Amino acid sequence: MVERGAISARSAEEAVAASGLTVVCVVNYDASDAILRRDGVTDALKGRTVVSLTADTPDRARDTARWAAGHGIRYLDGAIMTPTTTIGTANAVVIYSGPEDLYREHQPVLKALGGTHTHLGEEIGRAAAYDIALLDIFWTAMAGYTHALAVAKVEGVTARELAPFAKGIAAILPPLFEEGAEEVDRGSFPGEGNPITSAASSMAHIVHTSEAHGIDAGVMRAAEGMARRVIGLGHGTDGFMRVAEVLGRH
Amino acid sequence: MVERGAISARSAEEAVAASGLTVVCVVNYDASDAILRRDGVTDALKGRTVVSLTADTPDRARDTARWAAGHGIRYLDGAIMTPTTTIGTANAVVIYSGPEDLYREHQPVLKALGGTHTHLGEEIGRAAAYDIALLDIFWTAMAGYTHALAVAKVEGVTARELAPFAKGIAAILPPLFEEGAEEVDRGSFPGEGNPITSAASSMAHIVHTSEAHGIDAGVMRAAEGMARRVIGLGHGTDGFMRVAEVLGRH
Repeated sequence: MVERGAISARSAEEAVAASGLTVVCVVNYDASDAILRRDGVTDALKGRTVVSLTADTPDRARDTARWAAGHGIRYLDGAIMTPTTTIGTANAVVIYSGPEDLYREHQPVLKALGGTHTHLGEEIGRAAAYDIALLDIFWTAMAGYTHALAVAKVEGVTARELAPFAKGIAAILPPLFEEGAEEVDRGSFPGEGNPITSAASSMAHIVHTSEAHGIDAGVMRAAEGMARRVIGLGHGTDGFMRVAEVLGRH
Repeated sequence: MVERGAISARSAEEAVAASGLTVVCVVNYDASDAILRRDGVTDALKGRTVVSLTADTPDRARDTARWAAGHGIRYLDGAIMTPTTTIGTANAVVIYSGPEDLYREHQPVLKALGGTHTHLGEEIGRAAAYDIALLDIFWTAMAGYTHALAVAKVEGVTARELAPFAKGIAAILPPLFEEGAEEVDRGSFPGEGNPITSAASSMAHIVHTSEAHGIDAGVMRAAEGMARRVIGLGHGTDGFMRVAEVLGRH
């Protein structure tokens, strides 16, 4: 990076003092706290802006906002929603939350990361909340895919044979996500043609086939448990999206 | 349906005797066995063909093939991979396995269901194996989506706000599925830039945020457990697709 024009700082203190804006992106907030919350660095940040693109929970972003306010540091939280290889390209997706004026001020520099940048609101935990929810979808789907490939393999179906059909499944998700979001916001979960009892029946087939081959089916067992809970509460004729409402009950 | 030209039979015996081909699609094989494996119906099917589009496990398809062979009934298994509303349209996707000559013979009639029809091989359990693996991906992804909406809601993010980003996540899956399938068939799981330790860290954030709000995180706990198992086996620098290989170990 130095060869390509970057200036290497010998310490975090020196790095944050070199500019009005510090962008930090490490594995989690334990790691970024270990860098930023040391006296020399905290002092050097006074009056400057920190934009954290480090992924963690909404609570950690809120805690960091309190720390920043207590030390006269301006703070914007954010998250990168696309793989590292997209940075600097049109495919990067970066989300932010926190003071909008701070976002507007630094947007021209932040745009150097490439792609689409969206400010989601003033509440500092909002970017992390989106990040958590979207990673929830992503990693659950990837867990399902790896499991499906393991089951397919013991049934004599190679990954390459299954892949075109798996991509077909991914392709039907966006309209179902759209429709499901409307149901959840409306609080109405019509199940005509595809009741959650039918989903639970499919899920039981998956668990049975996996375990008959000695393949752990913990993820699908937990998913089936969510469906059975919905049925047990008397919503068996509703669609699967009812799960979102039941999960949120206290 | 009768108004639109269908002929209603008064019994299953009468229905199967009316044609050389019977297509059966009910909730599972317990239901289809209750219809087909009664003496009168089994006798009437002798020398005729049954195409079962009922979803169940590969073992049930194999068991049905043995029953069919024992009674002189020709049998093709299949599965419908798309919602009921796609039947009769170009969007239907139907897969088959079993004797290829039987598939070729009845294909002209089966095409009345609309859409794409694919014969996956002679082994009778193959269509059910694809079906199970693809439903595994589908229902796991839907479980992740409903959970994400529940978490987003308690964090003050509506389903409609999250939906456009959720659709963006679904859109990045097909190329990852393609790449992941190649890794699994090759048995090589490069983790540069995105090791499974990083996935496990994200998963722990999701579990923590959910449970801090009292939302059950059983699905993600099980998925994180799979990732931790891979790390514990010494593959922490590999990519997430290593899970498929570890799940299949005995």
